[in-house]
Amino acid sequence: MQNKQWILSSFPKGEIQDGDLVLKEQKLAELKNNEILIRNIYLSLDPANRGWMSGQASYVDAMQIGDVMRGGTIGVVETSNNEKFKIGEIVNCMGGWQEYFITDGKGVQIIPQNTGFPLDSFMSVLGMTGMTAYFGLLDITNPKEGETLVVSAAAGAVGSIVCQIGKIKGCRVIGIAGSDEKCEWLTKELKIDGAINHKIDNVREKLKELCPEGIDIYFENVGGPITEAVVTRMNIGGRISLCGLISSYNAETVVPGPAWGNLLIKRIKLQGFIVFDYFKRAMEAFQDIGKWIHEGKLQYKNEIIPGIENASSSIKKLFSGENKGKLIIQISDDPTL
Amino acid sequence: MQNKQWILSSFPKGEIQDGDLVLKEQKLAELKNNEILIRNIYLSLDPANRGWMSGQASYVDAMQIGDVMRGGTIGVVETSNNEKFKIGEIVNCMGGWQEYFITDGKGVQIIPQNTGFPLDSFMSVLGMTGMTAYFGLLDITNPKEGETLVVSAAAGAVGSIVCQIGKIKGCRVIGIAGSDEKCEWLTKELKIDGAINHKIDNVREKLKELCPEGIDIYFENVGGPITEAVVTRMNIGGRISLCGLISSYNAETVVPGPAWGNLLIKRIKLQGFIVFDYFKRAMEAFQDIGKWIHEGKLQYKNEIIPGIENASSSIKKLFSGENKGKLIIQISDDPTL
Repeated sequence: MQNKQWILSSFPKGEIQDGDLVLKEQKLAELKNNEILIRNIYLSLDPANRGWMSGQASYVDAMQIGDVMRGGTIGVVETSNNEKFKIGEIVNCMGGWQEYFITDGKGVQIIPQNTGFPLDSFMSVLGMTGMTAYFGLLDITNPKEGETLVVSAAAGAVGSIVCQIGKIKGCRVIGIAGSDEKCEWLTKELKIDGAINHKIDNVREKLKELCPEGIDIYFENVGGPITEAVVTRMNIGGRISLCGLISSYNAETVVPGPAWGNLLIKRIKLQGFIVFDYFKRAMEAFQDIGKWIHEGKLQYKNEIIPGIENASSSIKKLFSGENKGKLIIQISDDPTL
Repeated sequence: MQNKQWILSSFPKGEIQDGDLVLKEQKLAELKNNEILIRNIYLSLDPANRGWMSGQASYVDAMQIGDVMRGGTIGVVETSNNEKFKIGEIVNCMGGWQEYFITDGKGVQIIPQNTGFPLDSFMSVLGMTGMTAYFGLLDITNPKEGETLVVSAAAGAVGSIVCQIGKIKGCRVIGIAGSDEKCEWLTKELKIDGAINHKIDNVREKLKELCPEGIDIYFENVGGPITEAVVTRMNIGGRISLCGLISSYNAETVVPGPAWGNLLIKRIKLQGFIVFDYFKRAMEAFQDIGKWIHEGKLQYKNEIIPGIENASSSIKKLFSGENKGKLIIQISDDPTL
């Protein structure tokens, strides 16, 4: 049996180039005792992937040249030598950019079936994306009714959920996104209070206009001049949830952050977080998010691109902002459809 | 009756220059109903003073040209038309850079007498300086036994108290200061675990050597390249207490902060604070600090310079690092001595 795999063949400098990842076909190894064979169905493409390819350890080990590209997956168990997993079970794990994944089951979670939610939702709103939004906003910034929340990359997978949870909690929510189309989606569909197109608008001026009482909470996904503009308008006692810095992930030199003077004077709390730290509390997030979806208070958008061969070209959309919602590669047929 | 006053006559550009503050003599106003006349004894010189002179509002209103220079004072009530204050009582307030202060008593605290502590200690270790160190370290970073704490401006008024509270709480404490003499005082007298002279040592290399298990807590007083070096070595779950940024106070352009990438990956909590927010909890600090002084666990150093005429030239010492401990101007005789 053959296995198509995307192999890291050079550490990208700046943007990911064709050739940094190379699609190869390899013979599948024999299944050992205790191992399972998973057929990958969905592959998650995330800004964090870029950091994993940098050659530098961060909150996970550095990837090495020759490794299968790391990535979150949903798959189905096709063969099992491990009593914890049955054939046909749907699982969630770091299965990588490949058609098949062989593992001893460590870190593999079984996804419940017949929940009424489509399988790809477990890769976004009911997966790490939803957890990131939920804990990053609620746990770190403790939003209160009437407070003003600003979200950058607001039309993105995480950002759009943060915006909606902000509304559910009674905040005034202003989103920053990269096109008029996204801004319209945010205000018309997600019903947030205002949106700023950072490619056209003067972000500082717009923030002044849309946040007349200042900014209490900033959910940070981008870094750079947008961050600078937001931090300048924050109120005393403000909180910043530091989730991502996508504007710097392709940078070849270190991009400095905003001066700390404002953080000091305004007594701001800034807290970085990684969703992995919240895995034990996942059910808290999924119960609330599931309920909010049922109640029609929370919507999400997945952009599913078929074909493992499109993974490397598709991930670039995250950095150009072309993706429309959570970016997912469909590697093989979804048996639940 | 005449009153010598330092008047703000221009907003300093960069370092404070002769002429930005001008010493004038003015006739004292008549005491109105409800007012008290305070003779200032001690005047506190602090890095924060520079910010107050910038012409820009921060956590306090901006000073205006022509205002008496703002400053914390300890004084004695000489005349009282206010039943809350008796003649001869010693008080703590923002009495300004002047010989006499007339006030309706708002914001004026009475200092208890016969405590066994000299009066000038209420301007440092038992005053705002001590509170800043106490709440900035304990409330914001919650230090645990065995953790590594790095303190910048470690030989300064606040820093030196932070170092010692860190030791009391069982931390490994490394101080960063600006001379070998200061470093020696920190390690030999205050018995902290290591000190770095940032004017001579390679701070990055020294931090690596002195913090082999990384840095859990950073007490920030300075900003700039030192901050950069510390943040790079912080551990997962690290905390930064953002107390001051003295390296930037004289800067004419905004000095950027460190990139946020490390704060994200390491899940660091950064929290700015202003000691004014802790006034209600002052007794917590003073009880502990008083006890530690009695037990010989905490020492402090005040540099008392006689003569109000020396205030403007002396404050420059804070920025050059020439001061030895908490910098205080003695304006008039201390009646408790």
